[in-house]
Amino acid sequence: MPNTVLPSSPAPGARRDGRVKALPDQMRQHNRSLVLTALFHDGAMSRADLARTTGLTRVTVSALVGDLVTAGLVQEQGAREASGPGKPAVVVDLDRTGLMVVGVDLSAAHEVRGAVLDLAGAVVHRAAVDRPADGDADGTLATLESLIDDLRAAATGRVIGIGVGTPGVVSDEGVVVASPDIGWHDLPLQENLRIRTGLPVYVANDADVAVLAERTLGGASENFMLLKIDRGVGGGVVVSGELARGSRYAAGEVGHVTVGTDGGRECACGRIGCLETWASVRAIETRIAAGEPAEHVLREAGERLSIAIAPVVGALDLSEIVLSGPAARLDGLMRTTAERTLRDRVFLHDDVQVRMSALGEDVVLLGANAMLLHGELGIT
Amino acid sequence: MPNTVLPSSPAPGARRDGRVKALPDQMRQHNRSLVLTALFHDGAMSRADLARTTGLTRVTVSALVGDLVTAGLVQEQGAREASGPGKPAVVVDLDRTGLMVVGVDLSAAHEVRGAVLDLAGAVVHRAAVDRPADGDADGTLATLESLIDDLRAAATGRVIGIGVGTPGVVSDEGVVVASPDIGWHDLPLQENLRIRTGLPVYVANDADVAVLAERTLGGASENFMLLKIDRGVGGGVVVSGELARGSRYAAGEVGHVTVGTDGGRECACGRIGCLETWASVRAIETRIAAGEPAEHVLREAGERLSIAIAPVVGALDLSEIVLSGPAARLDGLMRTTAERTLRDRVFLHDDVQVRMSALGEDVVLLGANAMLLHGELGIT
Repeated sequence: MPNTVLPSSPAPGARRDGRVKALPDQMRQHNRSLVLTALFHDGAMSRADLARTTGLTRVTVSALVGDLVTAGLVQEQGAREASGPGKPAVVVDLDRTGLMVVGVDLSAAHEVRGAVLDLAGAVVHRAAVDRPADGDADGTLATLESLIDDLRAAATGRVIGIGVGTPGVVSDEGVVVASPDIGWHDLPLQENLRIRTGLPVYVANDADVAVLAERTLGGASENFMLLKIDRGVGGGVVVSGELARGSRYAAGEVGHVTVGTDGGRECACGRIGCLETWASVRAIETRIAAGEPAEHVLREAGERLSIAIAPVVGALDLSEIVLSGPAARLDGLMRTTAERTLRDRVFLHDDVQVRMSALGEDVVLLGANAMLLHGELGIT
Repeated sequence: MPNTVLPSSPAPGARRDGRVKALPDQMRQHNRSLVLTALFHDGAMSRADLARTTGLTRVTVSALVGDLVTAGLVQEQGAREASGPGKPAVVVDLDRTGLMVVGVDLSAAHEVRGAVLDLAGAVVHRAAVDRPADGDADGTLATLESLIDDLRAAATGRVIGIGVGTPGVVSDEGVVVASPDIGWHDLPLQENLRIRTGLPVYVANDADVAVLAERTLGGASENFMLLKIDRGVGGGVVVSGELARGSRYAAGEVGHVTVGTDGGRECACGRIGCLETWASVRAIETRIAAGEPAEHVLREAGERLSIAIAPVVGALDLSEIVLSGPAARLDGLMRTTAERTLRDRVFLHDDVQVRMSALGEDVVLLGANAMLLHGELGIT
């Protein structure tokens, strides 16, 4: 099997007429990813620059670009002034603003949020609908489907696929194994939506989707945990640059771990002192509404968060914890208390950081976009 | 670059005279690993069977086996009776009993233990010397070096390399970044021993070495944590089949994480209530020697162990915790209490297992052997 990736190898598929023999699918797919990734990160460039950047031959690049133009993913953008002698080179680029992704976030406390994003991650249209009551599994599915229909109708370009982030345990195939609050169990949501829409669909746990956004766009390190704090407390863990999945796709689920050895409040799951009873936005707001001083509640939320997370920081030698959720609650006393508590409780980690995600409340929508870029276009 | 791995591809390097053109180093190394791994796991076989098992061509296998025989790693073992027509085929095998590894375990409470093992993992010679006092960095190094000399002298076959497991934070290059009890800091132990002995040397954290043994020989799952409980409490974490290393090679270090929210004893590190003050064998023995009832001490050790580890089980969705250390202390009340506590404190994990390592007290020595098999022979 000829390898066209190594820069030093000749173009083994090249014929005298300048065309390229059919390459095995996998190799072609790999080379296509190299070209799309280069364009995504480095912007418009000539075919010659693409060849230099990817290490592919010019013949291979020309054939791939031809295919990508035909597929409507890449556009020729006219000639740039030549820097040297000869005629100006035509530059090509991803169709960044003409191609779109529909993203939906099921993790917010009160609404189901959706958006149409272009490939650059800009939100070109937004929509949100009230969230059905807890446990209304059918109602939530109907709400999701109709929101997706509305978003597709509002898209001003070609929608290349749909990404959904939902609370709960989600398999690699997008089956929602369990999402207790919504009431979904073993729901093949990804497959159902794919059949319904005829488009590529990616469904994943909301915190894992946020982790993908943070990795792709947020500059996170190779070893971190993201905590998604809103209605509940979910998480995603990155170990050596890879998202941990766990023995049953449930990695990151720390909302129902008991915190401390001094009791606590009763949790919806029936046990006492779960992390969610201390640190979810719902728990914080309930306590404040009941008259507890906000400072005390937020300080305690931060402290309990880190009592729970400290062993994870030690066991994985994490360099940072990223918080995602409403900044009004999280970014202040809660965050600073969490950071101090963590440094106190884990040896050798007096420099561990607790920071807010820089991606704000759109993190799951941006992650939905990243799922499509990665899954459909191979962009890494 | 021709690919000789795919079974469906022709033998691209084969010439009419039956010899094989020089292959790039990386590919040759890969194919050599395939052959050695097949022999290691499946035992002696003919060159034809090796070709079938590895998917390599017979020409490639013959050339590789020739090289391996020359290198003294593989032996011809005479002919087996043919099952079909034709003359009986010569079978080849790893020189399992003629090749040896020197392993040293620095993690035991009172002694430095070493062994000569053959490639099959059988201990052919054992030695142990008293451990120098805490903080005697030079004395411990001298003890280690002289133990290695003695073990090499006692080997009855060719020693292919040396593996050392030590408490502390150890870099990928075998630099002991910090081993506070011994007093080593930024000690390039692997390189020093390599220069001193002229042999391949692998130095790694003791718990990580134990994890490797458990993965290679102990039948552990893809997502587990091993806790090495002896002098201190160390750990190694496997996520999706890969050993977690962490942001500073300190993954697994949970001995100095604070447990619970109700105080505890002062730790050598200067803080209060670290896991080691509850669950190390040293802490357990000190408390029992002071007259506390053993049942109470062991039950509390198991409970505190799981209070600390529960968030790790949730965050990584682990299916089992493997305990390694003196069975007389660990395997009984401590283990059963740990399992029950873990199931109580992590939602969705009421089937998580806490079990003893099946490899007993030689786990680090067996892991040292596995480091050499993997690192020098590419056996996986």
